[in-house]
Amino acid sequence: MELFNTTLEAISSPEEGAKEEAKKRLDHLAKPIGSLGKLEEIVIKMAGITGKPHNKIEKRNIVVMCADNGVVAEGVSACPQEFTMILTENMTKGFTGVSVLSQMTNTDLTIVDIGLNGDMNNSKVLNKKINYGTKNFTKGPSMTYDEAIKAIEVGIEIGDSLYNEGYDILGTGELGIGNTTTSAAVLSVFSEFGPEITSGKGAGLTEEQYNFKKNAINKALEVNKPNKEDPVDVISKVGGFDIAGMCGLFLSAAKNKKPIVIDGFISSAAALCAVRLNPLVKEYIFPSHLSKEPGARYMMEELGLEPMLNLEMRLGEGSGCPLAFQIIDAALCIMDNMATFEEASINSKVLVDIREEK
Amino acid sequence: MELFNTTLEAISSPEEGAKEEAKKRLDHLAKPIGSLGKLEEIVIKMAGITGKPHNKIEKRNIVVMCADNGVVAEGVSACPQEFTMILTENMTKGFTGVSVLSQMTNTDLTIVDIGLNGDMNNSKVLNKKINYGTKNFTKGPSMTYDEAIKAIEVGIEIGDSLYNEGYDILGTGELGIGNTTTSAAVLSVFSEFGPEITSGKGAGLTEEQYNFKKNAINKALEVNKPNKEDPVDVISKVGGFDIAGMCGLFLSAAKNKKPIVIDGFISSAAALCAVRLNPLVKEYIFPSHLSKEPGARYMMEELGLEPMLNLEMRLGEGSGCPLAFQIIDAALCIMDNMATFEEASINSKVLVDIREEK
Repeated sequence: MELFNTTLEAISSPEEGAKEEAKKRLDHLAKPIGSLGKLEEIVIKMAGITGKPHNKIEKRNIVVMCADNGVVAEGVSACPQEFTMILTENMTKGFTGVSVLSQMTNTDLTIVDIGLNGDMNNSKVLNKKINYGTKNFTKGPSMTYDEAIKAIEVGIEIGDSLYNEGYDILGTGELGIGNTTTSAAVLSVFSEFGPEITSGKGAGLTEEQYNFKKNAINKALEVNKPNKEDPVDVISKVGGFDIAGMCGLFLSAAKNKKPIVIDGFISSAAALCAVRLNPLVKEYIFPSHLSKEPGARYMMEELGLEPMLNLEMRLGEGSGCPLAFQIIDAALCIMDNMATFEEASINSKVLVDIREEK
Repeated sequence: MELFNTTLEAISSPEEGAKEEAKKRLDHLAKPIGSLGKLEEIVIKMAGITGKPHNKIEKRNIVVMCADNGVVAEGVSACPQEFTMILTENMTKGFTGVSVLSQMTNTDLTIVDIGLNGDMNNSKVLNKKINYGTKNFTKGPSMTYDEAIKAIEVGIEIGDSLYNEGYDILGTGELGIGNTTTSAAVLSVFSEFGPEITSGKGAGLTEEQYNFKKNAINKALEVNKPNKEDPVDVISKVGGFDIAGMCGLFLSAAKNKKPIVIDGFISSAAALCAVRLNPLVKEYIFPSHLSKEPGARYMMEELGLEPMLNLEMRLGEGSGCPLAFQIIDAALCIMDNMATFEEASINSKVLVDIREEK
């Protein structure tokens, strides 16, 4: 509980001075003001995060929180629970989507067992298990309040340690059969929209399974009555260990004044919990893509963030983060390498004349 | 006229067999079917284009068509016409947005004077000038029908020669003060929407200038009566040399069975002309981002294409292409490097069991 509290207390506003400095340079680059749209917003936000107008992202890491969800007992998933551990195993072998995209973008992966329903015995998986999966939230809370705090603190510890090791940016990823159900439940609590809005057919549900999913969420809300004013209560009652762990990663980013990237629906549920714990956290978060999961756009609305990419992806794992890293690289590259009107004019007498006419 | 005709005749359908082969592999990768969304669509489309299920994009080139537009005499732009040549000059020096992003993504630039209102005398600019800018289209056609064909053929020749040199993909870019006006006029002809829908405030217009712009487009349509059934007539009457040249690039891509990328509003106007000349051309085109220019989404609707990126950019120059190249790279990398369920199961006995249960 102490790390959780000190982290929340240590989060402060981004540096407005650096943001202004960055904006000033962007406005002087040889292009119409604002014409690079979100690329410019990325540069400015990054300046606020680090306190420096120019930034480089050299070392990157995607943290994949792997955990099982008791709610799968309600038939809410097309895949058996065993898939979580199998996919975790495959991830260590470089086979999965996020593994491939991470290799391509020179990104390291940190694979964490924060609550798998079994033992991995794999040295490439960091064992931070809180419990062997959550409980079935249609019958009571997913986990205890204390477990939720502990899982959030696992995320904070991992984030702190990676940023200390010199990683310039983190991505958030997850593996966990059933976690579109927990994420939709979290969104339902905060948005007060029912599961017919917040949930979808995940990884290929039948109509019947989709009904199980909506019923499970409704039942979880009824049985547990999560308190939307207390995000830890929400996580403990209808969340999962993966959501809690990623929530901790977002808090760590804000505390360390470092950037962090959302992947899809599940990591945005974690981001929402973190932002509800402290609204300043939002200033340290970059969205990546708009997930095809139907609740995703409501999640983004709750967060007040707009994704850069529209790829209709719904794989999870953190697979959108490497794509966002590439766009962030492009934005920072523009800031460092485009000439200002003044710099350009060194070689362009005419330009000076025209600027003077203005 | 001969190159134009033989090119149109040589365009054929994409290879359905290769598309099916690619889809089959994608469906066997260790992920829910379709969960990589547009990344999967990119892989499949690329297979259809080249006729091979696996593809690599090693050499890339963005062709920037630079030209002036007579309609600037109507006060439709915030910048003086001289800016086109100044920006062209700066582009040769690596200062502009597309230069920086191209360097970052290892992309070559081909800068073409296809109709600048002056002589560049710069060895880095390919001189393919059709004329010293177009005429003011509120008083008559932008160019003659013959000039439109010649400008399209310039694009075809450049495309043919780059693909022959071994470039695997081309991007389309432009520089030309006044070209959001010509592009909006082209869109108005094909969509039959008025300029209040198809045009916007470009690179920072005042309300007065925006009115000039809408009036100029309305007048151009009245005076010239472009025939929407003949895209060359449309280009010659209300288009520009840049639009014509890029139209030729799109035709060349389809003829050579190679991929090509749209940047923003102006290059999508050129793509629309090419697709109206032969609907099969669409199968060879990848969109990149949704431009902030208000007409952009109507252009995409006319084209039946959906952009990958939503960055609110409106710089032009081809600046969205390098970002799209990165996403295409990611898609092809997934195809080559993710394991199929079968490949993954080599090391995962459990997975085999579960697959068999299904």
